[in-house]
Amino acid sequence: MSRRSGGRQARQKLRAAPLEVKPVRAGMDGGQYKPLTNGDMAQIHAAALEALETIGLSGVTETAAAYCTKAGAEFRDGRLYFPPALVESAIKSANRDFSLHGRDPKHDIHPKGRKVHFGTAGAAVHVVDVDSNSYRDSTLRDLYNAARITDTLDNVHFFQRPMVARDMETTLDLDLNTLYASLAGTNKHVGTSVTVPENTAPFLEMLYMVAGGEAAFKARPFVSASICFVVPPMRFAKDACDVMESLIKGGVPILLLSAGQAGATSPAAIAGSVVQSVAEVLAGLVYVNAISPGHPAIFGTWPFVSDLRTGAMSGGSGEQALLSAAVSQMAGFYDLPAGSAAGMSDSKLPDIQAGYEKGITTALAGLSGLNLVYESVGMHGSLMGFCFESLIIDNDMLGQVLRTIRGIEINPDTLSLDTMRAVCLGGPEHYLGTEQTLRLMQTEYVYPAIASRLSPKEWEEAQKPDIVAEATKLKNRILASHFPSYIPADIDAALRQRFDIHLPRSAMRLG
Amino acid sequence: MSRRSGGRQARQKLRAAPLEVKPVRAGMDGGQYKPLTNGDMAQIHAAALEALETIGLSGVTETAAAYCTKAGAEFRDGRLYFPPALVESAIKSANRDFSLHGRDPKHDIHPKGRKVHFGTAGAAVHVVDVDSNSYRDSTLRDLYNAARITDTLDNVHFFQRPMVARDMETTLDLDLNTLYASLAGTNKHVGTSVTVPENTAPFLEMLYMVAGGEAAFKARPFVSASICFVVPPMRFAKDACDVMESLIKGGVPILLLSAGQAGATSPAAIAGSVVQSVAEVLAGLVYVNAISPGHPAIFGTWPFVSDLRTGAMSGGSGEQALLSAAVSQMAGFYDLPAGSAAGMSDSKLPDIQAGYEKGITTALAGLSGLNLVYESVGMHGSLMGFCFESLIIDNDMLGQVLRTIRGIEINPDTLSLDTMRAVCLGGPEHYLGTEQTLRLMQTEYVYPAIASRLSPKEWEEAQKPDIVAEATKLKNRILASHFPSYIPADIDAALRQRFDIHLPRSAMRLG
Repeated sequence: MSRRSGGRQARQKLRAAPLEVKPVRAGMDGGQYKPLTNGDMAQIHAAALEALETIGLSGVTETAAAYCTKAGAEFRDGRLYFPPALVESAIKSANRDFSLHGRDPKHDIHPKGRKVHFGTAGAAVHVVDVDSNSYRDSTLRDLYNAARITDTLDNVHFFQRPMVARDMETTLDLDLNTLYASLAGTNKHVGTSVTVPENTAPFLEMLYMVAGGEAAFKARPFVSASICFVVPPMRFAKDACDVMESLIKGGVPILLLSAGQAGATSPAAIAGSVVQSVAEVLAGLVYVNAISPGHPAIFGTWPFVSDLRTGAMSGGSGEQALLSAAVSQMAGFYDLPAGSAAGMSDSKLPDIQAGYEKGITTALAGLSGLNLVYESVGMHGSLMGFCFESLIIDNDMLGQVLRTIRGIEINPDTLSLDTMRAVCLGGPEHYLGTEQTLRLMQTEYVYPAIASRLSPKEWEEAQKPDIVAEATKLKNRILASHFPSYIPADIDAALRQRFDIHLPRSAMRLG
Repeated sequence: MSRRSGGRQARQKLRAAPLEVKPVRAGMDGGQYKPLTNGDMAQIHAAALEALETIGLSGVTETAAAYCTKAGAEFRDGRLYFPPALVESAIKSANRDFSLHGRDPKHDIHPKGRKVHFGTAGAAVHVVDVDSNSYRDSTLRDLYNAARITDTLDNVHFFQRPMVARDMETTLDLDLNTLYASLAGTNKHVGTSVTVPENTAPFLEMLYMVAGGEAAFKARPFVSASICFVVPPMRFAKDACDVMESLIKGGVPILLLSAGQAGATSPAAIAGSVVQSVAEVLAGLVYVNAISPGHPAIFGTWPFVSDLRTGAMSGGSGEQALLSAAVSQMAGFYDLPAGSAAGMSDSKLPDIQAGYEKGITTALAGLSGLNLVYESVGMHGSLMGFCFESLIIDNDMLGQVLRTIRGIEINPDTLSLDTMRAVCLGGPEHYLGTEQTLRLMQTEYVYPAIASRLSPKEWEEAQKPDIVAEATKLKNRILASHFPSYIPADIDAALRQRFDIHLPRSAMRLG
């Protein structure tokens, strides 16, 4: 690069400029990456319709059968079959224009068109401890901490429960404390789940208390529920269906989740895995709209992949990247709000393998225009481990991914002929000090928080900083200082009176 | 995933199946990722034409001026201007259908359409030593070793000199020994460069000796030359131009390389940086075709990015990913063979930052349909360091990237309705043992060589293998055993008689 005169001064000027304007944000449009052609999508759609009409789903509950047959599905020989016209009608009438609210409106998410948002998710049962290079059981405190850290990260737009609080003894304690810890740690949109149908009533009760009433919650639902309503292949999951029916009545937006694993619980052919996943979620869409027409539901095709040599998940693979992007395109084909998973590393630690697996899969999911990219930060060991350091590092990664999603603006200013002319014809023959460079510095470039761009020499002089250690430092700073009060004191007191809250007030610096 | 009966047996059957068919290969079609619309490309093209017509290039040599003005360029006031018709005519008549040969034809590369090939490249001056966590000077032996390792890696399709042999004392020793060490270590296509014009004659002499004569080389040129013919912005580089003229006459395919740095030596606007880069390479295209119409030239737009806070390169950034993909699309707009850079990490070591930077940038470059992805393996510290371990790990990464490039085949078999029917309707309700799964295991899935998909439990039992340490082991195995004899003994003897070869025969196990 140019080291001609003017460069040094120009750089000093640049460094002094404030970085106020954020170059990337939630909800930018993806869609620049299209693994499927329009013809491919039409064929997948036709195959999904045929699967629903001729294979149908087993395991249907009585109420699901009642809702769906009333809408036009056919129940025979233990399976529920969906005629194409019924499915097409559900697609047509489904809600495709709703928000997933944050408690602070600045965090509202509008999963429409090709708008992209990244978030946490998962049900990891371990925390990756980078100090001891080992896995330990995840706890409620970990969940609260993950929510607090996420609350501070610009490129993580929503918080779905990424870990199971294994120190909870009953499913009721688990469901309620998961909800509480998430809402206490962040006012971004929260996703969670309810384990068994009998927990839905207290779950809704807690939600409404936090919202300040049922009507207040229903006006701005700030929690959505992840519902694994099918056990692939093509079988309803009883408990989840019952939970879903109650939560729909309670006004909770639903993530209609189908999580087949290619080669194990869905076809080994990538295309077939997409077909089955789309068919299953379309069945769910009919079901949801039969219960409550227009209820907010996210098209949650989450196809996973197996390593066929061992049967192990391979969430960081190229096949996974293709699957997530393809189902995202299918949701776009239907113009329905899409949620799927990307960023799931098979590596156990925040190492180079984790980096490339996360980078490839989150970039392709985002560029495919996936509205809600779940599991996009912190996940390791094929979803078994959650790592705080990775959460922080992945936030930097998503900054770069978001930059690619924003894309390249083309207009007379950005085409830069005037700037080139001024620089080349009698000018300084470099761009460091130009008006355009100074102006675009804040808007055209994403600067990482902890990733290093030091030269090898500077890196040596700085004692060779290690990115994982830097992330630990930042984690400790956040956890020692960021104690948000998103649950007002009186409501908190009422919650603790009514429910068995296992997160002590002292841990939340509530005195 | 399903653990129902049949699963275990099916997995055993799968593990026993031979993996003969490779699921990915060199030269698959990219193009699924399009950061630019057709309208964007037309505007960039128009701006590049305007830049060439109204800004032109300075620093033109006498011979370059002679060639180009004879073709229709205009020289005035120290600058060479290119009328649009001249540029359009060069684009139209340029060679767009040539091969970059390997000495073994199985390694031939046909950089046409949207076919994608990955390779090494760079001029790193350090080797990243992962054992001591430090950088050391790169040597000729390192270069030979990099060539030998690359020779064994399926997903690295060509070998361009990635390091400078700093133990060479003169530029002649450097140029000749770089060529020799590369050709001794691999029979994949080799890219290199010639430092000063006076070295071109011995360089060509060595090439022809290895080929078995000038005609033999020209029939299947197995070496291409990287020529930085411009010093951006818009200025010819004298020595490089003189080198290029000689090598074109010698029959060497040319990588027409323009390496501006956005915000420093090219506009800070991503679009403007693309415009300048395209304009510069189009000038080069006119020049090459004025010297020798139809000479094989690669459209080498290599725009780099600065971190504007410091002026440092940021080759692993989202901006870089956009730039590389955008110039790839522009070469596609012209239907010209495209070469650019991706995979350049700013991290100093093979860590998680390196992983995501490499993953994002190589995936987007490949999916954009870039014919020749240079620098795609091993590069660290903003191109200052080359790491053998990363070379090996990045090969695994590229396997996953190539899988995404291959994409999703849609046909009645892959749509899998028959398989779904057989599995769901009275079948085992899982896909582990199906005929389709067994058949697709070899063709649909890419298995990494060293990346780990062990579960956390298996990983602990295996003593927590570290991917960098695994790469070191594989590196040591390759370097201890892979001593190819790509230069026949008689030719080797003749080369050593004629030139000052610094790679001892003992180091090559030539006795």
